[in-house]
Amino acid sequence: MTGIHYSGLLRKLVSLGFGEKKVDVIDHHTSEIEKLSEEIEEERERVLKDPKSIMPAAFVSFKTRWGAAVCAQTQQSRNPTLWLTEWAPEPRDVYWENLAIPYMSLSVRRLIIGVAFFFLTIFFMIPIASVQALASIEGIEKRAPFLKPVIEIKFIKSVIQGFLPGIALKLFLIFLPTILMIMSKFEGFLSISSLERRSATRYYIFLIINVFFGSILTGAAFEQLNSFIKQSANEIPKTIGVAVPLKATFFITYIMVDGWAGIAGEVLMLKPLILYHLKNIFLVKTEKDREEAMDPGSLGFNTGEPRIQLYFLLGLVYATVTPFLLPFIIIFFAFAYVVFRHQIINVYNQEYESGAAFWPDVHGRVITALVISQLALLGLMSTKEAAQSAPFLIALPVLTIWFHRFCQGRHKSAFVKYPLQEAMMKDTLERARDPNFNLKPYLQDAYIHPVFKGGDDDDEDDDLSKKLETDSVLVPTKRQSRKNTPAPSRISKASSPSLSEVVKDGDP
Amino acid sequence: MTGIHYSGLLRKLVSLGFGEKKVDVIDHHTSEIEKLSEEIEEERERVLKDPKSIMPAAFVSFKTRWGAAVCAQTQQSRNPTLWLTEWAPEPRDVYWENLAIPYMSLSVRRLIIGVAFFFLTIFFMIPIASVQALASIEGIEKRAPFLKPVIEIKFIKSVIQGFLPGIALKLFLIFLPTILMIMSKFEGFLSISSLERRSATRYYIFLIINVFFGSILTGAAFEQLNSFIKQSANEIPKTIGVAVPLKATFFITYIMVDGWAGIAGEVLMLKPLILYHLKNIFLVKTEKDREEAMDPGSLGFNTGEPRIQLYFLLGLVYATVTPFLLPFIIIFFAFAYVVFRHQIINVYNQEYESGAAFWPDVHGRVITALVISQLALLGLMSTKEAAQSAPFLIALPVLTIWFHRFCQGRHKSAFVKYPLQEAMMKDTLERARDPNFNLKPYLQDAYIHPVFKGGDDDDEDDDLSKKLETDSVLVPTKRQSRKNTPAPSRISKASSPSLSEVVKDGDP
Repeated sequence: MTGIHYSGLLRKLVSLGFGEKKVDVIDHHTSEIEKLSEEIEEERERVLKDPKSIMPAAFVSFKTRWGAAVCAQTQQSRNPTLWLTEWAPEPRDVYWENLAIPYMSLSVRRLIIGVAFFFLTIFFMIPIASVQALASIEGIEKRAPFLKPVIEIKFIKSVIQGFLPGIALKLFLIFLPTILMIMSKFEGFLSISSLERRSATRYYIFLIINVFFGSILTGAAFEQLNSFIKQSANEIPKTIGVAVPLKATFFITYIMVDGWAGIAGEVLMLKPLILYHLKNIFLVKTEKDREEAMDPGSLGFNTGEPRIQLYFLLGLVYATVTPFLLPFIIIFFAFAYVVFRHQIINVYNQEYESGAAFWPDVHGRVITALVISQLALLGLMSTKEAAQSAPFLIALPVLTIWFHRFCQGRHKSAFVKYPLQEAMMKDTLERARDPNFNLKPYLQDAYIHPVFKGGDDDDEDDDLSKKLETDSVLVPTKRQSRKNTPAPSRISKASSPSLSEVVKDGDP
Repeated sequence: MTGIHYSGLLRKLVSLGFGEKKVDVIDHHTSEIEKLSEEIEEERERVLKDPKSIMPAAFVSFKTRWGAAVCAQTQQSRNPTLWLTEWAPEPRDVYWENLAIPYMSLSVRRLIIGVAFFFLTIFFMIPIASVQALASIEGIEKRAPFLKPVIEIKFIKSVIQGFLPGIALKLFLIFLPTILMIMSKFEGFLSISSLERRSATRYYIFLIINVFFGSILTGAAFEQLNSFIKQSANEIPKTIGVAVPLKATFFITYIMVDGWAGIAGEVLMLKPLILYHLKNIFLVKTEKDREEAMDPGSLGFNTGEPRIQLYFLLGLVYATVTPFLLPFIIIFFAFAYVVFRHQIINVYNQEYESGAAFWPDVHGRVITALVISQLALLGLMSTKEAAQSAPFLIALPVLTIWFHRFCQGRHKSAFVKYPLQEAMMKDTLERARDPNFNLKPYLQDAYIHPVFKGGDDDDEDDDLSKKLETDSVLVPTKRQSRKNTPAPSRISKASSPSLSEVVKDGDP
């Protein structure tokens, strides 16, 4: 595959120079490809022999599910930072750059990112406000006096005054998920799915603090923090509780502008549409190129899920205070259900399957929203005539948190562990049904670094994975099977979690 | 053993009546013992056959340490509440009553006890204050007017005024560890060691809130809570920080009266001494009885450790503020080291060995103390001239908590898990050194309920356990080996954690 890519690029470059001699060009390309292929092979050999390229991490495949389950759930060596075993993500899901970070470095990174995220959330308004000040009429006139005649034109002036400050904020908010993703990558997670999970959590916290509390209490997060620190623990729920009903109309507008319009934008897929047409005009040369340009990417869990959760929070908070807001939320969720169902089945090519590993996070956020709504209600009640009975409402968050812990004990292991009973049952069943079944040819190439993936192996892989894929398709779909991912098999869905392990050998 | 106990009791009763006819009495006793032994056997048979007596919990022994380690660390069935496996405590350490509590009931119990402990800690002064009001001169005269002439005597009056209120508080504080222990038992822990660990945690929280904060802020816990709720988060460290240096003299007195005197009382062992002499006068008939009366019990981790931690907290808090307090703390710790070392080696018969499972709790409490001292310092600094630099001190608790999490990741598994590498190494070593070693005869009786322990098996058990015990004694000790515990072996120390598992089968 890498070879084919290179050839596409070369044909364009060379044909600019030698456009006339048609046969010669193809010959030239063929020899060029051969030369490059040889170079690639040499480079691969070099890397394989280079002791510096050996990572202290490995993927281990087991003959039985039972063996894998035992290895993933137990501690191997006396030093728990030396031989860390955990379930391997799918081959497609592996984030190769982070495989070999030692434990000490991981801890320090986590601390740094934790502190950085705190400052990002609380003080993000400060740089934006300064940019906005710079982007105002006076700011521009002061910094660049030669622009004065242009700015004084009425149309441009109104654009600057009306749009620039908003655009500065919007630009930051557009780049926020990317910033959060970079933070998660720096933190050293091993799979794309866990990177997205962590980014989603951070994004949700950011939305709660800056959108929910930011709108209710009107003020930047650091001003809120300042006022919260100076307020008594008793007063905080009251402040929030009293402000909540006052902001109902604002949030109704917000649901319509951001929620409904966002869903409409989701089904329109404006960004991929524009990108496709741009690519179609400037880059696409072959049918294959066009197919690649059509790729809509995968559903962005790290931005979509926290946003939907924000509406869930709004629904819970306003359910008892201003039920008039609920129909708007219900319409949003009905739209979202229809649209996302369609998008997931027919449009997106999901990059990975993580076996519902996202669900515990979702559950935790629903509980958070519930507790916030209960505290806001408590605050509101204590300022009304029901002030006497308000303290009894404290039982609500206590019971909610207890319920969360109960659910964690009862259900969380289903997302984290793989019970031995199940593993044994599946092993026995497989041995009885298909005694000659051999996964080795598939596993041999499944977990090799994308750099070492030869173009020639792809077809064999595809055969096996397609066979497995057809077994697991439950909903008829219009989208094409994905051909351009490093390892497009869906074996892990058929026998999720996958049969392999990451054995990580970091420094203490 | 049960048989022997009965005989001792019977001999006394019968000899009161038939003291003269000596031979007949012994005959009578022998037949009586036989009759009772038969009854015991019958009762045992009945219980064994009774389907209602079957508990949904079992101890499983494994042939290899590896098997036990795998079973203890993995999840067995799909429903994580149905087949719960964990390391079995030592046979001596098992708390039999709690073995078969279903998961749902456990969760509810935990919630109830959590709420109860909150109220116990915060509002414990209210019932005591009312008792104190009742125990005052006026209270007694009002409730029991006929006592008036007695109370009016000057000596009795001064006793009531001076001692009764203090005694009411002291009585509660003496019974507090027992109350906390009952709470832990209700919560459903499986071993005596974990019961003591939980009680110790609760006792520490109680001491911090009611002794440390209670003395610093002078007021009952619920009054403090009230003032904290009404104070801003900013003000709380300031209030504490300012009050800390003012109370230094009080705490110096406290260290001398409670700390030094407590250590002296520990080496005197007044309570066991008095109890022994009382028993010696009224109960002791044989040498065996006397030996039993001499038993000093085991070191009370659930009260001793939290108290020592309180002095650690005092030392940390006052180290920067009033270093004059430190020599008193150092003398306390020097005394405590000498005394407790002596007591542990020569006096106490420890009931169980938990393999240092207490240490993570101790570490956590040291960290808590460190964070409290840093916050108090932060509060104090922000009221002095250094107010500008005070916010930078927030980095201290952040770094401390990060260090705690780092340590947990690096070291906690050593107390919770049993690495497979180690297990395999020990298995291999044992097989090579002693290929015919058979634990079965020991294990057969190790984990049976004390009710089923026959008196005749004890000697065999003792042989094996004594052999193992002599292997593991490191410090020469003056105390006698313990003969009267249900299963006095120390095998778990030799190969800790023990080779067995609790398999718990609760309802979902």
